[in-house]
Amino acid sequence: MAQKKEKLYEGKAKIVYATEDPNLVIQHFKDDATAFDGKKKGKIKDKGVSNARISAVLFEILEANGINTHYQKLLSEAEMLTDKLEIILVEVIVRNVAAGSLAKRIGYEEGAPLKHTIVEYYYKNDALGDPMLNQDHIQELDLATPEVLAKLKEIALEINDVLKPFFEERNLDLVDFKLEFGYRGSEIVLGDEISPDTCRFWDKKTGERLDKDRFRRDLGKVEEAYQEVLKRVAGEKLAK
Amino acid sequence: MAQKKEKLYEGKAKIVYATEDPNLVIQHFKDDATAFDGKKKGKIKDKGVSNARISAVLFEILEANGINTHYQKLLSEAEMLTDKLEIILVEVIVRNVAAGSLAKRIGYEEGAPLKHTIVEYYYKNDALGDPMLNQDHIQELDLATPEVLAKLKEIALEINDVLKPFFEERNLDLVDFKLEFGYRGSEIVLGDEISPDTCRFWDKKTGERLDKDRFRRDLGKVEEAYQEVLKRVAGEKLAK
Repeated sequence: MAQKKEKLYEGKAKIVYATEDPNLVIQHFKDDATAFDGKKKGKIKDKGVSNARISAVLFEILEANGINTHYQKLLSEAEMLTDKLEIILVEVIVRNVAAGSLAKRIGYEEGAPLKHTIVEYYYKNDALGDPMLNQDHIQELDLATPEVLAKLKEIALEINDVLKPFFEERNLDLVDFKLEFGYRGSEIVLGDEISPDTCRFWDKKTGERLDKDRFRRDLGKVEEAYQEVLKRVAGEKLAK
Repeated sequence: MAQKKEKLYEGKAKIVYATEDPNLVIQHFKDDATAFDGKKKGKIKDKGVSNARISAVLFEILEANGINTHYQKLLSEAEMLTDKLEIILVEVIVRNVAAGSLAKRIGYEEGAPLKHTIVEYYYKNDALGDPMLNQDHIQELDLATPEVLAKLKEIALEINDVLKPFFEERNLDLVDFKLEFGYRGSEIVLGDEISPDTCRFWDKKTGERLDKDRFRRDLGKVEEAYQEVLKRVAGEKLAK
């Protein structure tokens, strides 16, 4: 059993603790929610537990499909043991449907279908408000070489190919999602989490938003959305 | 002599008129100045004349260096005869030094040197506020294929290689500039203008801004800046 040592880092949604093994850390998933570069703040009851469990299931599915992740195991309801990664400061967004900032940027109605999957890069930098970057910016900032960036895009699209049908079977449209990567030694590995905080999930039949947009846009039934996604993702496991 | 026929289009800085030749148009350079998506408006005395003459000299230099432009000739002080292009709705920005939105985006001080020239793409779309786009967005919007986009970037960097030393000799740093391209038949050709409206020029010794930032940022001596760039660019010609 991994032992929780000193706090290494506290982010908006997670706290990372050291363990006795320098290659492993404990991620504590918080109930805190923020939006609009931290201008909006709140708490979502049991979000930490839901996101840890949803992420655990999704990391396991990705690993089973040959995608390397930092996931080791769930330790307690809101705590996950993961590899310690050297984080790449580029957030990779994969989009299957126009929503949020993409819909605004390209002038599409929210919900409009896309001809092709769109991948975007953002600078993981709170002080700058996580701006969108292109390959030249990323090279200038020494965040990733063009080769590493191409690799991140390739893995991100592979992840989409695994997750999209998985959610479809669970009656959810995977509208878009954010990924973060890091190095485990020389290997590029998926980090962070995959949850209603980092994805847009829409019910396939009703179009109901089952993700953080309920908090961002004050749509109500916020906790319920996270619970519902957990139920659809981990249904059978929950019954165990 | 080309005859001015009906007005085809009026933009923020230029009016385009038809001529008796369907392949040629007349560009009238206006004194009107706008900034911040049209939120700031004004007039800059003799800007139209300066920009038409500066652009004419620069188009001639580019043509002499093997770069195809829409330029035919100056007709009168603020009027230029050009090819009629089928415009590509992607604005290409080339940046040699961090300034304006780039400095803000990547968290550099204005004036900080860049390790490499940075190229950015923006959607030529006033209603959307000319947002930055990546290659996936551009493909989604059918603005340009990846091959055409690569070609635009290649030409833009060639233009930089011609203009940067040209301005250096005239004691000006070419900090950044915006290019617009279009089709003349199947050929990709540089369109629009190259002027203090579309470039940032800084005096090499004093760092003084000699471009539209004087208007945008209320720095004063706005007309004088345009005149000064005209003098440095077309000095010998003016003396004729």
